[in-house]
Amino acid sequence: MTEAPSMALDVNLVRAALTRFIREQIAEAGRRRAVLGLSGGLDSAVVCYLAAEALGPDQVLALTMPYATSAPESLADALSVVSATGVRHEHFEVTPLVQPLIDRYPTMDRRRRGNAMARARMTVLYDQSEAFGGLVVGTSNKTETLLGYSTVHGDSACALAPIADLYKTQVRQLARRLGVPAAIIDKAPSADLWPGQTDEADLGLSYDEADAILLLLLEERQSPAEVIARGFAEAKVQRVCDLCRRSYFKRRLPPVAAVSTCCVGRDIAPGTVPPHMDDQ
Amino acid sequence: MTEAPSMALDVNLVRAALTRFIREQIAEAGRRRAVLGLSGGLDSAVVCYLAAEALGPDQVLALTMPYATSAPESLADALSVVSATGVRHEHFEVTPLVQPLIDRYPTMDRRRRGNAMARARMTVLYDQSEAFGGLVVGTSNKTETLLGYSTVHGDSACALAPIADLYKTQVRQLARRLGVPAAIIDKAPSADLWPGQTDEADLGLSYDEADAILLLLLEERQSPAEVIARGFAEAKVQRVCDLCRRSYFKRRLPPVAAVSTCCVGRDIAPGTVPPHMDDQ
Repeated sequence: MTEAPSMALDVNLVRAALTRFIREQIAEAGRRRAVLGLSGGLDSAVVCYLAAEALGPDQVLALTMPYATSAPESLADALSVVSATGVRHEHFEVTPLVQPLIDRYPTMDRRRRGNAMARARMTVLYDQSEAFGGLVVGTSNKTETLLGYSTVHGDSACALAPIADLYKTQVRQLARRLGVPAAIIDKAPSADLWPGQTDEADLGLSYDEADAILLLLLEERQSPAEVIARGFAEAKVQRVCDLCRRSYFKRRLPPVAAVSTCCVGRDIAPGTVPPHMDDQ
Repeated sequence: MTEAPSMALDVNLVRAALTRFIREQIAEAGRRRAVLGLSGGLDSAVVCYLAAEALGPDQVLALTMPYATSAPESLADALSVVSATGVRHEHFEVTPLVQPLIDRYPTMDRRRRGNAMARARMTVLYDQSEAFGGLVVGTSNKTETLLGYSTVHGDSACALAPIADLYKTQVRQLARRLGVPAAIIDKAPSADLWPGQTDEADLGLSYDEADAILLLLLEERQSPAEVIARGFAEAKVQRVCDLCRRSYFKRRLPPVAAVSTCCVGRDIAPGTVPPHMDDQ
């Protein structure tokens, strides 16, 4: 039996790799600046520290974008990251950008409300990325990406994804090394879309459980049956697999009906043109 | 020398392929319904006809979402499509969803305003797709996709893209066969983001030129030099190549900093999990 894979990161190596990634991706786009949404949570705090380290704090614009029902502590935590990193900061209450939609459909459930908030934040963030001349740096981690715990064209929207290959547990390790305030590291993760919301209640799984199961399934290439045989509850393993499967559509480009001899995404790689187009 | 590729579609074949594509993609997601934004322009009109044919008009919800400065004729044209196809219809003025952002940044240029409008429409469309239980059907064509003439997370956002492999000129051919009103087929294409805007002025190219050049570059695999040798103006060919290159980022998933042994998008295909996860 091979040794169980570990969640432990080589934190210094990863820190260097991620800051280089941010610098290189932004330079490749001909830019020097980054914009990100700072929620007060762990993931965006870590990305803010990384971006400030990669580009210099003056080249980073962090946006705080609370909704009327957002917890005041979230904003306070976000502001502590602004102070600690020295990045530029802009505050934008998204309530007026969302309210006309909610007023029109007052029976809207909180899921739809949450999605509308996430998309309003994306709109402000992308607008400010044009104003500031920076790229939108994503703050999604690997756990929520795989479980589909995000809003398409909302919080998952970005130009580059520096921590999307780190499990939540690993983001926490990195946060400790970066010096993220303990209040942010220790609090229960929450999308803060309605009062009292926590990620773990929404998911029906703790991050420790989800990460341990995902690590075995993905990094260790075990089947769900093998993971269950290692002592994980069948219902939890099933839940992880279901969430992954149900969220396929969030992790791909939309399918195109191919009718030509040169369809983008089938005959030419997404995000490119055929190489002969560069023969001038 | 091989015969020049033709822009002529086998319209009946394509019509059947696209309606089947819409039906199959939506069924695969466990749904029977579609939602789309109807601008009054050619592309969304064609998609509305196709969706109504594929699913039945009762299963299609078309949204008209003008902004304060949108042309009244655009709305009238959109409503003519609603009448002709018999699809369900919802009207939502997006002005109040956009105005708080513009009021906060009054010096915002019209490009940023246009992007904010496109993203507000996306937000309404995705919200209504949840309310109606349908998928968002995209209305982008191949020409605008390749030239990057769209707003990321705005008008290009969709769950499936039925006409994204048809050049604008081909969408027009299909429109004639589908019976799209002549007023829509014959008017100058416009994103209608500000009064008097036309796509062709924005692009610096007519669609006839852009499509002819793209067809040679992509379907015929000619180099830019070969296209110029066929009599196309160097500046126009250059412009097409530049627009394609500058918009790479709009046609791909955001790059992820890969640090694990199983990175989504590198080690596992986007939108999937490793096949062994399905071994229950």
